[in-house]
Amino acid sequence: MIDYDGCFSSAARTMQASAIRKMGGLGGRVPDLISFAPGFPAPELFAWEEFRDVAQSVLSGSDPSVLQYGSTRGYRPLVEALAQILSERGIAATPEEILVTTGSQQALDLTARVFIDPGSVVLVELPTYTGGITAFNNAQATLVGVGQDSDGIDLEDLDRVTVRERAAGRRIAFLYVVPNFQNPTGVLMSLEKRQRLLEWAARRSVLIIEDDPYGALYFDDVAAAADTRPIKADDRDGRVVYLSSFSKTVAPGFRVAWVAAPAAITAKLEVAKQAADLCTGGLDQRIVYEVWKRGVLTARLPKLRSHYQEQRTVMTRALRRELGNLVSWPEPKGGFFLWAAFPERVNTDALLTRALARAVVYVAGSAFYVDGRSSNLARLAFSAPSAARIEEGVRRLAAAVREELDVSTSSVLAAPGAPGRPASP
Amino acid sequence: MIDYDGCFSSAARTMQASAIRKMGGLGGRVPDLISFAPGFPAPELFAWEEFRDVAQSVLSGSDPSVLQYGSTRGYRPLVEALAQILSERGIAATPEEILVTTGSQQALDLTARVFIDPGSVVLVELPTYTGGITAFNNAQATLVGVGQDSDGIDLEDLDRVTVRERAAGRRIAFLYVVPNFQNPTGVLMSLEKRQRLLEWAARRSVLIIEDDPYGALYFDDVAAAADTRPIKADDRDGRVVYLSSFSKTVAPGFRVAWVAAPAAITAKLEVAKQAADLCTGGLDQRIVYEVWKRGVLTARLPKLRSHYQEQRTVMTRALRRELGNLVSWPEPKGGFFLWAAFPERVNTDALLTRALARAVVYVAGSAFYVDGRSSNLARLAFSAPSAARIEEGVRRLAAAVREELDVSTSSVLAAPGAPGRPASP
Repeated sequence: MIDYDGCFSSAARTMQASAIRKMGGLGGRVPDLISFAPGFPAPELFAWEEFRDVAQSVLSGSDPSVLQYGSTRGYRPLVEALAQILSERGIAATPEEILVTTGSQQALDLTARVFIDPGSVVLVELPTYTGGITAFNNAQATLVGVGQDSDGIDLEDLDRVTVRERAAGRRIAFLYVVPNFQNPTGVLMSLEKRQRLLEWAARRSVLIIEDDPYGALYFDDVAAAADTRPIKADDRDGRVVYLSSFSKTVAPGFRVAWVAAPAAITAKLEVAKQAADLCTGGLDQRIVYEVWKRGVLTARLPKLRSHYQEQRTVMTRALRRELGNLVSWPEPKGGFFLWAAFPERVNTDALLTRALARAVVYVAGSAFYVDGRSSNLARLAFSAPSAARIEEGVRRLAAAVREELDVSTSSVLAAPGAPGRPASP
Repeated sequence: MIDYDGCFSSAARTMQASAIRKMGGLGGRVPDLISFAPGFPAPELFAWEEFRDVAQSVLSGSDPSVLQYGSTRGYRPLVEALAQILSERGIAATPEEILVTTGSQQALDLTARVFIDPGSVVLVELPTYTGGITAFNNAQATLVGVGQDSDGIDLEDLDRVTVRERAAGRRIAFLYVVPNFQNPTGVLMSLEKRQRLLEWAARRSVLIIEDDPYGALYFDDVAAAADTRPIKADDRDGRVVYLSSFSKTVAPGFRVAWVAAPAAITAKLEVAKQAADLCTGGLDQRIVYEVWKRGVLTARLPKLRSHYQEQRTVMTRALRRELGNLVSWPEPKGGFFLWAAFPERVNTDALLTRALARAVVYVAGSAFYVDGRSSNLARLAFSAPSAARIEEGVRRLAAAVREELDVSTSSVLAAPGAPGRPASP
């Protein structure tokens, strides 16, 4: 018997499976599971008819390059479309500054490889996106957390941590932030804080990786497009690497995302991508491009926004009704997630067993913390289940929480079906 | 101005762009270029009609999971199909041992990350595939070359090199080999040598990465399916990681390939893939699966084999006619490549300038050598251009070679159009 553990690289020995993917794998094993775990877009909103129509046309065979190996940089018309999409977000980027990636996870991975040496510090928000954590961990970064306020990253803590790490002789590779509807907290970084963050980055000479998968999905009742202006839009020094994706607005199955960065960085990411997968799928890129070109994407965005806004309302109302003041959350102004805080006695890692027994699942807060903390927090994705399933899932979750608290008879809790407090917001 | 070079990781600072990709990028810039550079499959053989038909059906919307985030391991019916495909090649692999990858390049990259520590030795054939070289280099491996005979890797040299590297205190991560129609030489490793290689690997405790993109594309006039039996088929110890792909048999634009390895290794590769791109494209996987399930792939293989065999014949005849005994090559028994040796005075790196001036391009031998040697060798891909373009490309190449030799008046060379020596084979 071969000792495979002895064969693995030291990076491989410390690789950890994604907690979200693990939860995602439960679907087939727990009957009738309601999952608030993965940030899946709602598939009933996918433009199936248009996809079929575009696929027919690009697979006609008249352009053989569709299915040939493609350029690593990306399908040129798509790269040019991305320049226009970026421009609509306030970002001036030339095709030389843009790289198409096989999903945003690849962009995180390439970024990790291009900037991180083993032991380099990566500054992340506390909590932060697990996909970033795994990509940076696999490059053997030391992840250092920075606190967040209700309007985004805590700049004083950020400066304190930066000074401390540098004083200890460590190299800071970059700061990773998700300013729009942060994953997992849903927090929207204020415009004023974005400006101050850029000034700070210039003063301290730190690169910023800005991850923006959700910016287009703001909720009209509490936010506007102007609130989502990327940090990159005001990046005059070339200090920001901007990541975005079509996974939440077109469909994740196509695996098409992109990076906009200074040309020297984009060129380096491109070389890294050559070794990673040569090129992003040709059919996927063309479908996404055609969907954009025909105006389908732009026309659908208002519908996506109102749909996810309604999903959020359904979840917040159900939570308030089922758990009253036993749950709270920062108001999500866009995106897919609600960051729920239960009473402090409720540890969400422990709660998972009870939740699964009731066929409901979420991602425990611990997955998003790089400081190893376990807590009373959970990420609830309201994006994919139907309204009825959200209602039912929240009922199950509330029952699990009550059981955990062993206070099911307490008057604090409203009985299922009883009128609850007004929904928030 | 930010000093980006100072921001890059040490791995990024030494990353090198692929020579093949560089040549591939010339297409748009040199008018009427005939390219023998990239190993592109012939797009006129793609099953366009079947692809359109399958796309219509999988994009019906009746199965929303088609365009959702998918399992990292791969679309389950495809994984099971791969078990059957592998079984037809003599490899017994369970679904737990199989991982779908986003092209074989990703499999090389994941393999690199899972086994290579900075400074680990990777043993490769001299010459070897550039995609392997870049993936292993990016993981900061030390690449050490091993000679090849006409029937594959030189086992004595392999053992000598292994003993030498270990005596020097270096860790050997694995041996990388392409036994079927090696890239770039086209060499087919003999069955006897495969057996002896496995015995050697057991004796020396070395893992083998077996890359097999071309196995199904043997040439009936000089080889048979039995000659391509993978090393993995006789791997009773669990010492071989087997890579294969649909890029050459279905189409590269779909980016679907796979790994078969012992379950412990596959599980580790899967975790690495989570951080690399979450999952392979859902539409691509389903198209490939359906094409296989409908029998389209199997039915087309004989046609692909005879087509590429004919392409090889066209190229070998043209080379013999245009260059006589100024060129030689090991007989390709399958695959896409001919490994041409010109007179020793011809350096193929230098020759490129002359070739480009005549609008023909190839990949210089130096790209495939990890020992930095420049040489009189070139990889000529006969897979993609039409027969007429192969003829014309060889005429141009021959003119460039003659010019380089400055012997255009010599009687050694047949004038263009004059009857040449009999073609080989």
